[in-house]
Amino acid sequence: MRRANILAGSWMQDAGMETSQDRAGTLVGRLESPEPTNEVLLIGSHLDTVRDAGSYDGALGVIVAIAALEKLRSEAISLRYNVDIVAFGDEEGVRYQSSFLSSRYFLGHLPKEELDLLDADGISLGQALGALAVERPHAGYGPEEEFLGYVECHIEQGSQLEKKDLALGVVSGIIGQTRARFRIVGKSAHAGGASMEERRDALAGAAEVITMCESFALKSDGLVATVGCLDILNPASNTVPGEVTGTVDIRHSDDRRREEFCHRLEGAARERLEKRGLGFEFQVIAETPSTFSADRLTSLLEKSVLEVQTSCPVLESNAGHDAVAMAMEMGVAMLFVRCRDGLSHHPDEFVEPTDIEVAIDTMARFLVALNELDS
Amino acid sequence: MRRANILAGSWMQDAGMETSQDRAGTLVGRLESPEPTNEVLLIGSHLDTVRDAGSYDGALGVIVAIAALEKLRSEAISLRYNVDIVAFGDEEGVRYQSSFLSSRYFLGHLPKEELDLLDADGISLGQALGALAVERPHAGYGPEEEFLGYVECHIEQGSQLEKKDLALGVVSGIIGQTRARFRIVGKSAHAGGASMEERRDALAGAAEVITMCESFALKSDGLVATVGCLDILNPASNTVPGEVTGTVDIRHSDDRRREEFCHRLEGAARERLEKRGLGFEFQVIAETPSTFSADRLTSLLEKSVLEVQTSCPVLESNAGHDAVAMAMEMGVAMLFVRCRDGLSHHPDEFVEPTDIEVAIDTMARFLVALNELDS
Repeated sequence: MRRANILAGSWMQDAGMETSQDRAGTLVGRLESPEPTNEVLLIGSHLDTVRDAGSYDGALGVIVAIAALEKLRSEAISLRYNVDIVAFGDEEGVRYQSSFLSSRYFLGHLPKEELDLLDADGISLGQALGALAVERPHAGYGPEEEFLGYVECHIEQGSQLEKKDLALGVVSGIIGQTRARFRIVGKSAHAGGASMEERRDALAGAAEVITMCESFALKSDGLVATVGCLDILNPASNTVPGEVTGTVDIRHSDDRRREEFCHRLEGAARERLEKRGLGFEFQVIAETPSTFSADRLTSLLEKSVLEVQTSCPVLESNAGHDAVAMAMEMGVAMLFVRCRDGLSHHPDEFVEPTDIEVAIDTMARFLVALNELDS
Repeated sequence: MRRANILAGSWMQDAGMETSQDRAGTLVGRLESPEPTNEVLLIGSHLDTVRDAGSYDGALGVIVAIAALEKLRSEAISLRYNVDIVAFGDEEGVRYQSSFLSSRYFLGHLPKEELDLLDADGISLGQALGALAVERPHAGYGPEEEFLGYVECHIEQGSQLEKKDLALGVVSGIIGQTRARFRIVGKSAHAGGASMEERRDALAGAAEVITMCESFALKSDGLVATVGCLDILNPASNTVPGEVTGTVDIRHSDDRRREEFCHRLEGAARERLEKRGLGFEFQVIAETPSTFSADRLTSLLEKSVLEVQTSCPVLESNAGHDAVAMAMEMGVAMLFVRCRDGLSHHPDEFVEPTDIEVAIDTMARFLVALNELDS
């Protein structure tokens, strides 16, 4: 993250921006308007991704933002409003399974109780951020500053644009998401000494929960549910697993259906595990409601897309984005860029350079359109 | 292991033994007979155990051996044969999932291909042992030396003695064991972007294998099967797992039924995983046939037990022991000591001190009985 921020920060500086960085790893590049103004538009995305992933998820949006501003500068176009490029440090939550960590911290919206979350080494989020970290208000923006909104460019992480043979689309909304952690407690025992009947095998219990999660989700239209992490405490090939922890990620555009699924899964899992004599703890770590894009920004973005492309699909995002967190404070809009096979979180993640070029052009057009609208 | 060997080695030295240690962590204490002899009896067990386990599995047998020799010395009894106390360094295979590593190495029975096994950090067994490590013959025993056998005292890791309300029993045989590793290969994907239908979730596949393994074993009388390790490659709560590796441990007193189970599980798992579009690799890491105790040593041990206890149960061991490896070169016998609730590989593992006292007394009586038998 440090090296990524140094590199991206140098590009921001080359583009004429002043840079700063906060405790949660968010890099901010500010381009002051030549005219005095209290208006600021935020554009950007995140620079982190998951392990063994691709090069585009997140980073593309930061690069497109910098390149769009560079493009305007090369064309000697200045804006009436200030622009902050925000490059968030932790969107994925690899360390704490807590999504939009940096953007929520940036806005001062990180709840105190989350500071007690522990990473794999037992270091709390509070320790990692430093004391009183959560107390800070909106990234140092004063009350006199007026947010024009947050605009994020991101790879689609789905294949709707590919199917339509189009490079770009705008986003109508982002589906809600629940992230939960669970712990299954049985009793470790010798793999030879303990008969099948007397075992309280936490992993066998976890296997049932994983299968249950998948089969419930397959029957719930539009819902996706994923057990992404699973850890056995003190594993050994000749020991019956005594304790297993894991994560569940649940998403649906209808918040009520998502919440219902979560309760149903928890209840059914508890019932099955109790029959096995296994303890079960289930804790919702993060819950974000479905988020709707701001009409004004989105229609302006759509107009800019239509200047470079014959039609502009309006898509729903199944993936969470920092825009969800930013929507707590300001209107948001998102520009999606086609990615090959809809594949993301995988080394083969790929975006055509020509599509990136069109995305930069569109973002630059959007900035000008907003400039004209406000003038 | 280093600290354990220093401590146990100091006790051996206090008991009048000369100590040495090999590359696979086996500590040997030799008590030379005052009479010239080429006969040597090996007694001992292992000093390693699994993570977060108890204090008795393995270590008890080493302590009982040292204490029995100390007892004879305090009674001024000398033996006509040499005694080697062997304290093996790696019986459990926590690092390489390869059982009886140290005892097989000790005997020069470690196959070359096992040197290519990798630990979690990618260090091969060959690297860990050092080059040519496998070439060594039987722990430096010359062809003139004659093995009287190997006798191991160990906690029962089951509850048959507890049910009979007896401290000690002897072992008729040790059931055979297969250890296998498997790898399930799907495709990692974004937990929001990938629909349930298009996923190739390696963890969901692994869950089916775990459930299958358990249900097959529950239907196979006398068989136990355990998935003890399970690892997701690059796990993240918002990523569909792309690759999962794990271990299976299978045991049955009938070698053919164990082998049949292993093939059946592999075949059924492959079929299910293929239907899911998942790749499947299954590799048997270690396979040990059922081992039978040597009659002569076992009846002598039984006689010694009957001197301290009203009856002597003859038990079958469901757990593997170094005696399995030692049986490749010499007759073996085992003394089981009652443990609370039959619990092992768990911090609550417990043996009554009075039972340990009786075990030491019995081992000392056995050494004398063997001495008289040989004279």
